[in-house]
Amino acid sequence: MTTKVGRNQLFFAFSPELQPATRVQQGEEVVLETHDCFEGQIQTTRDLVDELDWEHVNPATGPVYIEGAKPGDILRVDLLEMKIGPQSSMVTIPGEGALGDVITQMETSILRLEGNQIVFKDKIRVPKKPMIGVIGVAPQGDAVPCGTPGPHGGNMDCTLITAGNSVYFTVGVEGALFGAGDFHAAMGDGEIVVCGAETSGEVRFRAQVVEHLQGLPTPFVETGTVVATIYSAQSIDEAADGAIHRMAQFLTDFAKIPLNDAGMLMSLVGELKFCQVVDPLKTVRFEFPKSVLAEYGFEM
Amino acid sequence: MTTKVGRNQLFFAFSPELQPATRVQQGEEVVLETHDCFEGQIQTTRDLVDELDWEHVNPATGPVYIEGAKPGDILRVDLLEMKIGPQSSMVTIPGEGALGDVITQMETSILRLEGNQIVFKDKIRVPKKPMIGVIGVAPQGDAVPCGTPGPHGGNMDCTLITAGNSVYFTVGVEGALFGAGDFHAAMGDGEIVVCGAETSGEVRFRAQVVEHLQGLPTPFVETGTVVATIYSAQSIDEAADGAIHRMAQFLTDFAKIPLNDAGMLMSLVGELKFCQVVDPLKTVRFEFPKSVLAEYGFEM
Repeated sequence: MTTKVGRNQLFFAFSPELQPATRVQQGEEVVLETHDCFEGQIQTTRDLVDELDWEHVNPATGPVYIEGAKPGDILRVDLLEMKIGPQSSMVTIPGEGALGDVITQMETSILRLEGNQIVFKDKIRVPKKPMIGVIGVAPQGDAVPCGTPGPHGGNMDCTLITAGNSVYFTVGVEGALFGAGDFHAAMGDGEIVVCGAETSGEVRFRAQVVEHLQGLPTPFVETGTVVATIYSAQSIDEAADGAIHRMAQFLTDFAKIPLNDAGMLMSLVGELKFCQVVDPLKTVRFEFPKSVLAEYGFEM
Repeated sequence: MTTKVGRNQLFFAFSPELQPATRVQQGEEVVLETHDCFEGQIQTTRDLVDELDWEHVNPATGPVYIEGAKPGDILRVDLLEMKIGPQSSMVTIPGEGALGDVITQMETSILRLEGNQIVFKDKIRVPKKPMIGVIGVAPQGDAVPCGTPGPHGGNMDCTLITAGNSVYFTVGVEGALFGAGDFHAAMGDGEIVVCGAETSGEVRFRAQVVEHLQGLPTPFVETGTVVATIYSAQSIDEAADGAIHRMAQFLTDFAKIPLNDAGMLMSLVGELKFCQVVDPLKTVRFEFPKSVLAEYGFEM
């Protein structure tokens, strides 16, 4: 039996004060139904952002209490399956995003899902690439709004966070209080106008404490081919610096790669990538190939 | 007959004062032989960077005078073929690069080319991915050292700049005075320790003024699948802003995509990417799919 949390179980800030929507065992499969980032307020092209109730933006579903997860533990969340809704929306908001200085017209666009494609304005077909924008655990200290990224996860808008991949978090409070929302049917690295194709959906996952990775620089992502550190900061320069140094720390401390080798290999086959540059905090990741880790005898 | 410029024809700054190494017609094929960024000073692991003659770092081969290229023209350079040398080098330099604060040991590593792979420390095999680090035309004003990126091109370290792709420049002076050097057998986006696999090589290219793209935001790259704007600035934040706004300008002015559509599509399928974050000026590119341009009826 899979535990399911409906999209009526929402929260708007990752907080140690949250009441669990459900409690599950480690390794148990859970399905979260999610709202889009507008909590469904945008359904047609006539629904413009100036009519939004901003108290109902960026909800996450949950939180899920993971039995036995204690502060300081590293929690691996395996994203087993992701579904997205039949339509998604994009908006332009004058003054917001990386083009906010030139965009003057508010507009809402509704994109249809057709098979493996998303259709923009009945004209442009692009591949579906579902991803999770908001995902994280409750921090130990102050609550963090779901629209903000940070050490606990949150609104990282990282395109690697999708079905088949795993995300690692450092548990802040008993039970972790995990949640997710803000799915995108597709999004390019950068998220230029502050949205991907915003959609509802559901994700099936399981979460497990991994003892041997204590101290892992989180948030951390693992795909079939790469591992990635993620860091958010006021400027992209700081975010990049954080992601780079955390990867160097991981490669030396965990994979036991000598620092000079780690640096040269990061320069040779590592990839510094943008997640998003449009929230007050910017998010950058550093990807490194697992094949090279394997040559040094390391597996996650 | 193809014109060939040997690697004895070097220059160290893109300057309007340069004397042409050769003069060619538009569309004529030219081969440039290039030195690695150390002008061959590093051949073994015993050649450390503290013994380098820094007056002989980052040479470009050329310059090539393109007949008929006038200031303000847009010059398309088609990179037809690229060869790289049998070995390449990587170095660590304490105090330099994105990990300069933690790297304390100077080291030189020699990488062998074996078929389509590069071998690092006899252990790590990674795919060969040749690219050109330094490429550009003479600016109209002050000379720019070859190690510096800018509106004229230069040390952009953009992994898209490789055989099969085209790079567009705005001509600064009569004849353009085009040159290239600083090849990498492979390099990851970011160039963390200030080098890729530095190698000598040769590139076969042809250059052509393209009248219909007057005003193109250059440097600009075209591959089989994407177009990209490139921008360099003191901070990554500024470089990202520049690359993003130039792509928006290109999409609206050239591809005639309405600004809101351009912004939403940049958010949906555009990709903001790092070139390098380790020179005094940082370089960022914005990639946009040509398939979407085609839907709007635009071809380069």
